[in-house]
Amino acid sequence: MSQRVKIKQVLHDDAVQYTATVKGWVRTFRSNRFIALNDGSTNNNLQVVVDFENTDPAILKRITTGAAISATGTIVASQGSGQKVELQATSIEILGDSDPEKYPLQPKKHSLEFLREIAHLRFRTNTFGAVFRVRHTLAYAVHKFFNDKGFVYLHTPIITASDAEGAGEMFRVTTFDPQKPPVTEEGKVDWKEDFFGRATNLTVSGQLEGETGAMAFGEIYTFGPTFRAENSNTARHLAEFWMIEPEMAFYNLEDNMNLAEEFIKYVIRYALEHNREDLEFLGARLAEEEKSKPQAERSEMGLIEKLEFVLNNDFMRITYTEAIDILKNSKPNKNKKFQYMVEEWGTDLQSEHERYLVEKHFKKPVILTDYPAAIKSFYMKQNEDGKTVRAMDILFPGIGEIVGGSQREENLDKLVHKMEELGLPVEEMYWYLDTRRFGSAEHSGFGLGFERLVLFVTGMTNIRDVIPFPRTPKNAEF
Amino acid sequence: MSQRVKIKQVLHDDAVQYTATVKGWVRTFRSNRFIALNDGSTNNNLQVVVDFENTDPAILKRITTGAAISATGTIVASQGSGQKVELQATSIEILGDSDPEKYPLQPKKHSLEFLREIAHLRFRTNTFGAVFRVRHTLAYAVHKFFNDKGFVYLHTPIITASDAEGAGEMFRVTTFDPQKPPVTEEGKVDWKEDFFGRATNLTVSGQLEGETGAMAFGEIYTFGPTFRAENSNTARHLAEFWMIEPEMAFYNLEDNMNLAEEFIKYVIRYALEHNREDLEFLGARLAEEEKSKPQAERSEMGLIEKLEFVLNNDFMRITYTEAIDILKNSKPNKNKKFQYMVEEWGTDLQSEHERYLVEKHFKKPVILTDYPAAIKSFYMKQNEDGKTVRAMDILFPGIGEIVGGSQREENLDKLVHKMEELGLPVEEMYWYLDTRRFGSAEHSGFGLGFERLVLFVTGMTNIRDVIPFPRTPKNAEF
Repeated sequence: MSQRVKIKQVLHDDAVQYTATVKGWVRTFRSNRFIALNDGSTNNNLQVVVDFENTDPAILKRITTGAAISATGTIVASQGSGQKVELQATSIEILGDSDPEKYPLQPKKHSLEFLREIAHLRFRTNTFGAVFRVRHTLAYAVHKFFNDKGFVYLHTPIITASDAEGAGEMFRVTTFDPQKPPVTEEGKVDWKEDFFGRATNLTVSGQLEGETGAMAFGEIYTFGPTFRAENSNTARHLAEFWMIEPEMAFYNLEDNMNLAEEFIKYVIRYALEHNREDLEFLGARLAEEEKSKPQAERSEMGLIEKLEFVLNNDFMRITYTEAIDILKNSKPNKNKKFQYMVEEWGTDLQSEHERYLVEKHFKKPVILTDYPAAIKSFYMKQNEDGKTVRAMDILFPGIGEIVGGSQREENLDKLVHKMEELGLPVEEMYWYLDTRRFGSAEHSGFGLGFERLVLFVTGMTNIRDVIPFPRTPKNAEF
Repeated sequence: MSQRVKIKQVLHDDAVQYTATVKGWVRTFRSNRFIALNDGSTNNNLQVVVDFENTDPAILKRITTGAAISATGTIVASQGSGQKVELQATSIEILGDSDPEKYPLQPKKHSLEFLREIAHLRFRTNTFGAVFRVRHTLAYAVHKFFNDKGFVYLHTPIITASDAEGAGEMFRVTTFDPQKPPVTEEGKVDWKEDFFGRATNLTVSGQLEGETGAMAFGEIYTFGPTFRAENSNTARHLAEFWMIEPEMAFYNLEDNMNLAEEFIKYVIRYALEHNREDLEFLGARLAEEEKSKPQAERSEMGLIEKLEFVLNNDFMRITYTEAIDILKNSKPNKNKKFQYMVEEWGTDLQSEHERYLVEKHFKKPVILTDYPAAIKSFYMKQNEDGKTVRAMDILFPGIGEIVGGSQREENLDKLVHKMEELGLPVEEMYWYLDTRRFGSAEHSGFGLGFERLVLFVTGMTNIRDVIPFPRTPKNAEF
């Protein structure tokens, strides 16, 4: 028996007149003759032509949607339209049946909501096949980008006793019997008795540990899961998501912005080069979906056009203060169309404001810098004005904030003072402060929410559709 | 001012007579003249020669071990031994001081135990610089290997309601106030009220979810953190570690073994090609350490020799049954030198038995297959003998089990029967069983503990020294 070949290879090679065995899952079977076979290596199916006169009718009956089969025969030029080659099968073997009465993925359009309920099977659809192959490529491009630049991939801890940003609700990690945890003499839960000898949580960020790496290797990045126990049931929030966090010694804010922009463009370009077919499929899907929207709400560009637009244009870089001026004088603000009016310097920007800047005013990705210190994290470098910090957020159309970063405060005294002001545990965080105590230097970093990137590149609109098994409030299925 | 160049580049280029700025941390400063400067891009230091007559004595005083500096000058051929080029500095800027009275990393030999206590600073040592650069390279090689073969990187969930292997203690994930969790009418903790609407844990394996991906994409792999709440305080166990788990449709056990062997050899070769200097340093470190051991306990090969030996030899493949015969008739068994005597077929192998097979009998990596069903997991393919399963473990010298895998049972009835026998929740795991219900096919996979691989390649002996911030019983520092 000939060696199995992948369908992607067969279609790509475009060669004919050779014997091949393919294995995969039946997408459709029509006229007792034409199998559309998919093996996951590509969204494209291989047409397998069954010699139905010489095939056992019992076998023919078992060639149903979802069944796994092995087909051996000759690759020939295809007579039909839509494909250049096809397999003239001389033998078909049923590897695993799929009862058409029970298989949930019949060849018809299923809603994304329904497919979310069967996330363990949705990989077998065209849409999710494409989404997760693109997700793979983006992940690979992340590693390749940083590796090629000499960054060290650092696995920062998932279970941690520290709260990196002082931000966000956290998940507790424990081995206590919740029915009767050990208690202290005062009747409080005695965390000293827990597995790690203290109360521990799931990490919300690897940044602080990452900084300790940057101050040794120069440039590091993390790429791992992070967690937020926020009760946000929106299309943009997950309780468990993957984050990429580079940290670089000797980088100021401008170096940081340059790196972030280069990085985003690199991974998008990499996906365009390596997953063109998947992205074209997703572009067509999106265009189809947009048809059901009123004209005014449809996006001006197709998916691929939008990705290429990002590649071909510099991100707009402005300060928070400039942004506030633009927003104050904007039509929606004057006409009171914003839900939250922009009146004072110092207010945090809402999603509607970010969207206005990106989608209406500049019509391209925007990097906002130098935010008010009061609305940003303690570790950001303080500007000399005493009011703002060297933060930068990158805002993307349709997504909002895709990157949040800053130059870090490298001055020990300023940092400690800030922590004391905010009531952060200075003693406990001695290890973080040691980076400023011994050989401190200008340094910067940022975090990119990987799923938001995947959303942008695939054109999907719900973040639950770009992670294999989403974790959200009241949902940890599979 | 000239652009900063990395020290790795300067040393690699070997060019002279050009102006350069380097930034990094002082390792040593001798005779008020020679700075050994390290920037983390390589273990090698650049010698910076200070023009001490024209340098402010106040600056000279601040050039201490651990201080961050920027040095600008001309790269010239070095007069000293040990380096080809050096920087004749015309200006030195102190970026961050390092008080010699307080800096814990003075230029002397520190014990690994001591360095573990200051894990946030140990990246700045030669040993850990090398270890974590090699770890990076291995991680990158993992992604490159699978990407180049067309595998899809699947992020399986970290928080899960299922216990993949029925194996190992798990960490609970919860947002309950441990002081007073909500209770049901019967007085039990009411998990329905918890964040996810059910009791959830940290994953012990992504395999089962990975299989759902394999049955759509053909070939997938995971690479993420996994957890065991076992109270094992050994040099080989971590509560949090990273695991690589490929799953492949249409692979039988032999295909699985071939892939695993090719994979391990690929990543080791990749490290040898890309981190030769780091590995040579670690080899010398190991040789030094071995000197303190009695002759009989020293390893026969040096680190690089050992890695090359693995590349150049086929792994020995034998069945569990054959291994038992060898062990029964072995000298240590006959002379009662084993702590656990090998008497009966069916017994699980102890670490001493695995080491005997690998280090004494075959003197190379061994793949053991076809273990007794009773000591292996429910999902492994049952052999026709009714006693054994199509498992495979790869055993490595000094490490023991580095890979555990199997062909998976693809027959729904056999799988359900086995699960019922073991009292596993068949209903709850409908989603896993759906892979056998709809389009089942022969498939296989394995898991490789990433830290064990890093241990082997770096020659380190304690697993806490190959992960940045180890999590072990009573320890979640940093």
